[in-house]
Amino acid sequence: MLSQLPGLRRHQIRRSERSLWRYAAAFPLQCDSPISLGEGCTPLVPRVIGGNTVHFKCEWFNPTCSFKDRGTSVMLSLLRQQGITSVLEDSSGNGGASVSCYAAAGGMSATIMAPASTSPSKTVQMQAHGAKVELIPGSRQACADAAVAAHGRDDGTLFYASHNWQPFFLQGTKTLAYELWEDLGFHAPDNIIIPTGAGSNILGCDLGFSELLRTGEIKALPRLFCAQPLVCSPIASQILQKLQQDDGKTVPGEWNVPVKTVAEGTSIAQPVRLEECVDAVVRSGGSAVRVMEDAISAATLELARLGLYTEPTCAQAAAAYHELLATGFIKPSETTVVVLTSTGVKATPGVAHMLGVIV
Amino acid sequence: MLSQLPGLRRHQIRRSERSLWRYAAAFPLQCDSPISLGEGCTPLVPRVIGGNTVHFKCEWFNPTCSFKDRGTSVMLSLLRQQGITSVLEDSSGNGGASVSCYAAAGGMSATIMAPASTSPSKTVQMQAHGAKVELIPGSRQACADAAVAAHGRDDGTLFYASHNWQPFFLQGTKTLAYELWEDLGFHAPDNIIIPTGAGSNILGCDLGFSELLRTGEIKALPRLFCAQPLVCSPIASQILQKLQQDDGKTVPGEWNVPVKTVAEGTSIAQPVRLEECVDAVVRSGGSAVRVMEDAISAATLELARLGLYTEPTCAQAAAAYHELLATGFIKPSETTVVVLTSTGVKATPGVAHMLGVIV
Repeated sequence: MLSQLPGLRRHQIRRSERSLWRYAAAFPLQCDSPISLGEGCTPLVPRVIGGNTVHFKCEWFNPTCSFKDRGTSVMLSLLRQQGITSVLEDSSGNGGASVSCYAAAGGMSATIMAPASTSPSKTVQMQAHGAKVELIPGSRQACADAAVAAHGRDDGTLFYASHNWQPFFLQGTKTLAYELWEDLGFHAPDNIIIPTGAGSNILGCDLGFSELLRTGEIKALPRLFCAQPLVCSPIASQILQKLQQDDGKTVPGEWNVPVKTVAEGTSIAQPVRLEECVDAVVRSGGSAVRVMEDAISAATLELARLGLYTEPTCAQAAAAYHELLATGFIKPSETTVVVLTSTGVKATPGVAHMLGVIV
Repeated sequence: MLSQLPGLRRHQIRRSERSLWRYAAAFPLQCDSPISLGEGCTPLVPRVIGGNTVHFKCEWFNPTCSFKDRGTSVMLSLLRQQGITSVLEDSSGNGGASVSCYAAAGGMSATIMAPASTSPSKTVQMQAHGAKVELIPGSRQACADAAVAAHGRDDGTLFYASHNWQPFFLQGTKTLAYELWEDLGFHAPDNIIIPTGAGSNILGCDLGFSELLRTGEIKALPRLFCAQPLVCSPIASQILQKLQQDDGKTVPGEWNVPVKTVAEGTSIAQPVRLEECVDAVVRSGGSAVRVMEDAISAATLELARLGLYTEPTCAQAAAAYHELLATGFIKPSETTVVVLTSTGVKATPGVAHMLGVIV
């Protein structure tokens, strides 16, 4: 998906605004009254791993402690402006917490359909924000199907604001690109490694950087690298196939059925924008890494020992960095960003398991 | 404690720095290589409660999702510069997580003494960062006593870096004052309501704003208001006594023995800097509120319905705002800041209990 929008030049950044709304000039619609809680403006922290300095974009410095708030703030602001007051979302985790939070902040009502297996910490947060939570038996897909079927319920007022389908969500995640560009003194990095579930950060980076290329603010797109757990790697596998690269790893069983991975936030067997993600990564000159479970665990603890406490879901991108360095895809001298999407505070049982601690 | 330091003027802010180290000119020692993970630069979010706009300082936008990181970053940076490599901390929660994180980031070793009752999510995080966790049976005080006794262990190398005692910690929390001043266009607010355990944000605000008063950057100190749970309110009670105010509330039992409150982060029966906190609040022209348990719960859910998902520990400051408004201490037309120190993600069981949900 190449952006059709004109993009933004550096003088159009609203520099006094401490939120992603500083890039509002890059949005497709003007929003007179955004629903904003200080999302975005996250730190880019340089740390040494594998002997090299890597820039970690710490996306848990956000209202609900995950990157989803970028997409949600823009999506719900633009929907509310068009008269939507009641939204429906299907989510197994951070997305539902984020939509619940911003709906509350914006005076909208939210219904979240979540798989019955969803972690209580997520459903408690949704309910605290006043969202109606409907637990759906069965798989993540069953939950998505139930949401599609429920669209238009309540006399047609219930609007399906899926963070995976709604294009406005990607208008929010594209601010990651603008922000990295500003963080790096108005330069694009050489490489961005992105932990990938449905792919909204891949598509956001593609949109944002392609707009910056069009305005002439950058000279080339950064290469985008997709990191997925080997046991659930639909996007990464297709990228490798398209590039005719064979990583020599064997997938245990089928990954188009629900699979258990420690990187649970990226356990999405059928991402709705698969083709667009593959296209974006290939077009950027990037590639993909399918990460083994033990490498995800090792990377989670490696990052924690550097002071970065993250969900295993995103630590896999650091594991991918090691592999890309070893295979020569990424050079030590290049500017590489690793996107860390959420905090380890949300993943206590998983981290405890890695440490061999019983909680 | 009045600051003896010269303070900082606005032209001394290092504006390109996205962390509290932008205010490094205000620190007592120059630090050549700070341990920084993007702490500080948190958003100040205006929301309407009680019919008025209040500015919420969202301190969970920090590396370990709590305000402690301000103090820890400065404390460990300055200690490391003086050759300390091994630190000891006693903590029942966010402080220990923060010290573990920054010790890891700074290549230092950390030993955390925590009460045996400490929540597993906190001890798991400490261990992930590589800290040695020693669980101490008995009360929070027993734990502090054990830490004092252990100081100098390991052939004299183990340094007691208590975030409650160490003055460098307060040099970090004082950046809250500098940041609020910058957030508000280089003005001090009229009032700041602070959820209070050991009082490091009260003392930080006192230090920072008194320095700004001395440099002439502000004309008057903001009034500081201390919020504590009624059942554990040593600082608030003494403030009210000193001001000869009687809030008419009865303390159930003794609060100098361990008491259960939903605001567990402020459950500190014997704060080591009690007199300094009382003095700072009284000198500022402020006061204190002792908050009932049901009001803390109500405020936690009220904030969540506004999009602010916080620990009950800090939501009590919003409850205090309602009371200060009702009693006329604070006027609707004044600029009031409420400090929110940590995220609700850290308090799932407590919030679930408020919602009547079983997790």
